[in-house]
Amino acid sequence: MNQAERLRTVEDFVRQELIGQETALDSLADAPLPLYKSFMDTGLANWWLPEQYGGQAVSLEDSVRMVSALSYGDAGAAFSLFMTVLATSMVNLYGSPELKQKYLPGLVAHPGFCATLGSEHEAGSELGRMTTTVRREGDELVLDGKKAFSTNTGFARFVVVIARSADDPGDYLAIVVPRDTPGLVVEKRWDVIGVRSSATYEVSLRNCRVPADHALKGNGLRLLEIGLNASRILIATTALGIARRVRDLCMDYAATKQVKGAPLEDNAVFAGRLGQFEMQIEVMTRQCLAAAREWDEIAARPDAAQEFYRRGTLKSALAAKMFCGQTGFQIAAAASEMFGGMGYTHDSIIGKLLRDVRYVSIIEGGDDVLRELVYNRYVLPAANRG
Amino acid sequence: MNQAERLRTVEDFVRQELIGQETALDSLADAPLPLYKSFMDTGLANWWLPEQYGGQAVSLEDSVRMVSALSYGDAGAAFSLFMTVLATSMVNLYGSPELKQKYLPGLVAHPGFCATLGSEHEAGSELGRMTTTVRREGDELVLDGKKAFSTNTGFARFVVVIARSADDPGDYLAIVVPRDTPGLVVEKRWDVIGVRSSATYEVSLRNCRVPADHALKGNGLRLLEIGLNASRILIATTALGIARRVRDLCMDYAATKQVKGAPLEDNAVFAGRLGQFEMQIEVMTRQCLAAAREWDEIAARPDAAQEFYRRGTLKSALAAKMFCGQTGFQIAAAASEMFGGMGYTHDSIIGKLLRDVRYVSIIEGGDDVLRELVYNRYVLPAANRG
Amino acid sequence: MNQAERLRTVEDFVRQELIGQETALDSLADAPLPLYKSFMDTGLANWWLPEQYGGQAVSLEDSVRMVSALSYGDAGAAFSLFMTVLATSMVNLYGSPELKQKYLPGLVAHPGFCATLGSEHEAGSELGRMTTTVRREGDELVLDGKKAFSTNTGFARFVVVIARSADDPGDYLAIVVPRDTPGLVVEKRWDVIGVRSSATYEVSLRNCRVPADHALKGNGLRLLEIGLNASRILIATTALGIARRVRDLCMDYAATKQVKGAPLEDNAVFAGRLGQFEMQIEVMTRQCLAAAREWDEIAARPDAAQEFYRRGTLKSALAAKMFCGQTGFQIAAAASEMFGGMGYTHDSIIGKLLRDVRYVSIIEGGDDVLRELVYNRYVLPAANRG
Amino acid sequence: MNQAERLRTVEDFVRQELIGQETALDSLADAPLPLYKSFMDTGLANWWLPEQYGGQAVSLEDSVRMVSALSYGDAGAAFSLFMTVLATSMVNLYGSPELKQKYLPGLVAHPGFCATLGSEHEAGSELGRMTTTVRREGDELVLDGKKAFSTNTGFARFVVVIARSADDPGDYLAIVVPRDTPGLVVEKRWDVIGVRSSATYEVSLRNCRVPADHALKGNGLRLLEIGLNASRILIATTALGIARRVRDLCMDYAATKQVKGAPLEDNAVFAGRLGQFEMQIEVMTRQCLAAAREWDEIAARPDAAQEFYRRGTLKSALAAKMFCGQTGFQIAAAASEMFGGMGYTHDSIIGKLLRDVRYVSIIEGGDDVLRELVYNRYVLPAANRG
Repeated sequence: MNQAERLRTVEDFVRQELIGQETALDSLADAPLPLYKSFMDTGLANWWLPEQYGGQAVSLEDSVRMVSALSYGDAGAAFSLFMTVLATSMVNLYGSPELKQKYLPGLVAHPGFCATLGSEHEAGSELGRMTTTVRREGDELVLDGKKAFSTNTGFARFVVVIARSADDPGDYLAIVVPRDTPGLVVEKRWDVIGVRSSATYEVSLRNCRVPADHALKGNGLRLLEIGLNASRILIATTALGIARRVRDLCMDYAATKQVKGAPLEDNAVFAGRLGQFEMQIEVMTRQCLAAAREWDEIAARPDAAQEFYRRGTLKSALAAKMFCGQTGFQIAAAASEMFGGMGYTHDSIIGKLLRDVRYVSIIEGGDDVLRELVYNRYVLPAANRG
Repeated sequence: MNQAERLRTVEDFVRQELIGQETALDSLADAPLPLYKSFMDTGLANWWLPEQYGGQAVSLEDSVRMVSALSYGDAGAAFSLFMTVLATSMVNLYGSPELKQKYLPGLVAHPGFCATLGSEHEAGSELGRMTTTVRREGDELVLDGKKAFSTNTGFARFVVVIARSADDPGDYLAIVVPRDTPGLVVEKRWDVIGVRSSATYEVSLRNCRVPADHALKGNGLRLLEIGLNASRILIATTALGIARRVRDLCMDYAATKQVKGAPLEDNAVFAGRLGQFEMQIEVMTRQCLAAAREWDEIAARPDAAQEFYRRGTLKSALAAKMFCGQTGFQIAAAASEMFGGMGYTHDSIIGKLLRDVRYVSIIEGGDDVLRELVYNRYVLPAANRG
Repeated sequence: MNQAERLRTVEDFVRQELIGQETALDSLADAPLPLYKSFMDTGLANWWLPEQYGGQAVSLEDSVRMVSALSYGDAGAAFSLFMTVLATSMVNLYGSPELKQKYLPGLVAHPGFCATLGSEHEAGSELGRMTTTVRREGDELVLDGKKAFSTNTGFARFVVVIARSADDPGDYLAIVVPRDTPGLVVEKRWDVIGVRSSATYEVSLRNCRVPADHALKGNGLRLLEIGLNASRILIATTALGIARRVRDLCMDYAATKQVKGAPLEDNAVFAGRLGQFEMQIEVMTRQCLAAAREWDEIAARPDAAQEFYRRGTLKSALAAKMFCGQTGFQIAAAASEMFGGMGYTHDSIIGKLLRDVRYVSIIEGGDDVLRELVYNRYVLPAANRG
Repeated sequence: MNQAERLRTVEDFVRQELIGQETALDSLADAPLPLYKSFMDTGLANWWLPEQYGGQAVSLEDSVRMVSALSYGDAGAAFSLFMTVLATSMVNLYGSPELKQKYLPGLVAHPGFCATLGSEHEAGSELGRMTTTVRREGDELVLDGKKAFSTNTGFARFVVVIARSADDPGDYLAIVVPRDTPGLVVEKRWDVIGVRSSATYEVSLRNCRVPADHALKGNGLRLLEIGLNASRILIATTALGIARRVRDLCMDYAATKQVKGAPLEDNAVFAGRLGQFEMQIEVMTRQCLAAAREWDEIAARPDAAQEFYRRGTLKSALAAKMFCGQTGFQIAAAASEMFGGMGYTHDSIIGKLLRDVRYVSIIEGGDDVLRELVYNRYVLPAANRG
């Protein structure tokens, strides 16, 4: 497929499977595996994987366009479908050739999921305080601990676990763990308030054993930062998709609603608000694309792995997530007042969109955490950094 | 009961029946009649009714204090329990002595509800465009039409219907209609996104007949404006109760959460945010109390009915609803980012509080409508008013 | 004079001396002593002083009404004219009868100013770090130090200095110092960016000697807090006066400006914005009045001095200053875009109003400082306060 | 010069001529022609002009980088120096070869200015209501009218006047008029509240005659829209430069200021605010660059003139100006509270930066006007456009 075909495929999927299905998507019944399968059957499962593993090697810039289209239909579905990028980008950049060959092709050939186990309850945003440990025993790595929020783990093929080295408490590893490894237990699925067609789990690891070569190369916390560059940009993009949906919802409403004997479309207050939305959508779009382009430029370098490692978390990716999360919420919140009483019922989807978009500012680092990260990495003079 | 006892009674009810019951209150199963009954059994049903009808003649200022306490527990329950004030204040001010004697005492003696049928789908905020009509036939008034959003109608004793005069299309009436009048049909209960322990209905009227003396005295739209003064102040107050709950939720969380080796309570960013919340809560409180006091001062006049009629919608009541709706939403939205990933699950009630508070800016006139109303009534020079 | 006469006097003064004189008021030539004299000649100098000292004993609530009217004309003039309340309320509450008799009557009989020397450059908002000291030598107190921002000192009769005790570094005193005391030197007048018809000075104290009985009773920092309750409420009120002026400026403009063939007055976006302003003005008004009423209630108690001392900084006064500063700036900033290109020139006074209102959020504690103060005093459980 | 040299040249100029000269730059004495000359003497006068006219053909994307650097020093100087782009881009795209050869080379060879006369008092944002007319008399065009705000006209070589056709009132022309044409009179320089080192004039045209071939090709209003694409992007960029300056001002302050015994740099509230600023600066940067790149792509087409004409006002340019104006003001307003009392004096430049940045949201279309423009051109379905 070329990008035009991919976009058309996504738009068809959105029209056929997502638009109009909001009640079901919002119901948090079982994880919507048939829906995911239906998407993956289009041939787009994990679309960004390199061609040598059977993937389509789609750039992150083009991925932004696909995720914008997908999350226009439903941000939860989009989230589960692209969230594997966090683990695959870590494995692809820092896994051994054998490890990559073992785990990546299967995600395309028999379309499926992988997941990342990073966050913990106690540590919260201070990942350095994590208590999940990994220790070396002979040729094996042994993992123990509990992970708070992990999307897709319930039905993943493998997970990448971030853990503290039991041998060297200042060191962290990122380790590939097959999902069926004994001791890896999904404790529960979270009853989230939005993006309810995705599935996020609490997971525990008890004496989980994998071969020692399943550790990725480099400090696990740094690798996580690098993986988050890609997923944060796509999470930001879901706010863009939602914002575009909100705008169209307003315009659909305005086409039929009369105010003072004239169509709402002609109302100056309405026009001003939609003009502001459109301006904001334009800026969100540009930021997501620019951040993705920066990522693509690094990824295209022969020394991509080293360059990503050197740079760590990218300002453009942090800014995309912060800005789109804040702005998307603003847009949805403003719109949630624009439909009269109907907008306060489930006859309208604006309530769902407001709940969905909220997640952008919460997962993978709340704004308070990211503000501090931007400050420490990009504002404070290097000499004074904590 | 004196006011101190009333407040204690409300707080006991909140502690025993509301706090901790959020999942049930948020479930929108059947209308929670047992819960309402439990409140009314305390002796506080329709607490503001005049003593001559068995009521406690509580001032609106004291009512603000009670509703703040009640909505701290659950805004939906508070909303259903005080919302009868809209109809009772219209009846009490503009009903004939016989009508009042017939309908008001029962609301206390056998505690129960009344409701108001005002809004319509097509008319939206332009009530003057309503199509529900009332026509005179002999000694009867005959009503026909459809009403969009009416809280408590499903289990009310009587309703007050605002209708256009079929005989004089420029005139409107407010008419008391017993709930069991043939032709008054509850079409459905709305599946609202918040305040789900209240119950709001769509209602139709087909050839509903009541005696002609069931019309209140005065223009029905003006009477509705006057009734809304009281209900808008108490709706504003629910935002205050929610904001206080949000603040305490934050403080409970901060008492246990550690950030960088120190309690969250000591974190400067957290402190600044809570300081801003507290400032806003103070201002919300003062505005609700001031608006209520103004209302009480008018109500205490011998010519209260005429004075209310002369003044119509009060700036202080509009400002209370607008300000508390905007500010309460701001507070809940800011807080919804403060609990990490848990705040995005139903393990936390912050999602419910954010949905609940949203109604304040939507019902009884969205902010766009109220801004225009304030402008036309209180800013534009009298000579230029449309 | 009764309050109606006082208000009329203020309004006459505003009309005759302030409206239309904005260029002169904004010029920061010499301190506008003739203007101040012109106000004081109306008989309203330091209008709140007790009758026993020749004052009119105007309540703070009525003072709010006067300051709102005065700052509608010019916030800078208002600021200098009421700012003496900070020192006079400290002296009146905590001075000995002799001290009061010596210093207060003169402020009315020969209308004039007093000032307060509190802030210091190094200490900033942490007054406890101040380095100005006072030491006891025989029957005298000797003061040394430098004070950063002190309004009216240049032409004051006496000042109240807050200083650290050289004998007990944990203690602070508030001391009355005649303006002509040797060693009290006005270093310079600040070239402020707004409220330029007030006059604020940098002042140094070198071996300034006053009789020991010139110390007020109680901890100087606590006394300052108490004095600030009154001045903060009136500073908040200047934001109210400015906001009202902004609103009227908009309406004057709208009466003449045409947009799309209709008066701007009829434009829906304009109407919505002015409706929001008016709502905010209403809330600002209520908060200033409520805070002042609380102050008046304490002041009316027989044990007023002890009660003020017990309560220290009042939440209502902090909230008034924070809320009115934030909201007044919002209003002026929004309006500064509403006059087209003319609004960006000195042909319009909107630029002055925007600069003027900014001071409310800066002096007597910026919002960051006040948020923390509200948090520590009114949110944090008593047991955990730092 | 290559772009690196150009940037270095700009930065040297900023360091030598602007930084530290704020008092002079802000004084609005005479138009600072020596300053402009000093810049132009670096060889960068009108740097974007095509090479065939002696220019350096700098792309708009690279121009954004230069204007960001220049306005970091002083937005007013930047504004006057790049503002000629409005006229030169109209002339370059829609002038005859002879006209271009006559007027453009001189702007480089003897570095100097041109200007655009568009806005009028009565018409305000509705340019279609302009009353300046142009009529044909033989081989001449005769112009009459009055123009409100025109930057640089006082010392320009030529101006481009937008005027209504006297012969066909629905048509508008853009006409090149030499500055020394009899009847073109500069009435006054505006006393602006910010960007005071630029110079903007009120101008009248009385029987001004130019050869008929001095009219550009195409509808004058459309040509103005096209020219504004470039100038709006660079105006947006000045907000970016100012925001970067504000950030550095904060960091300089924080390096020396102590709060609670620690450097302000380590304060969490400060860090959070600066992290937010930096995120916003990143997004502003990306938007300005993206809009400029879009412009460059069109300009590089062989049919650039037709393509610009077909597209008219570009969403990316409108969004850049709206977003950067709003965000730059937010940043400067937030910062204006961060320097304590000093920030309210002219000892700090924050007051100047706040006044300077305000112009971005006012000139070349206020946000209300641009919101409506975005709505009409880019949101409303084509069929329903007014």
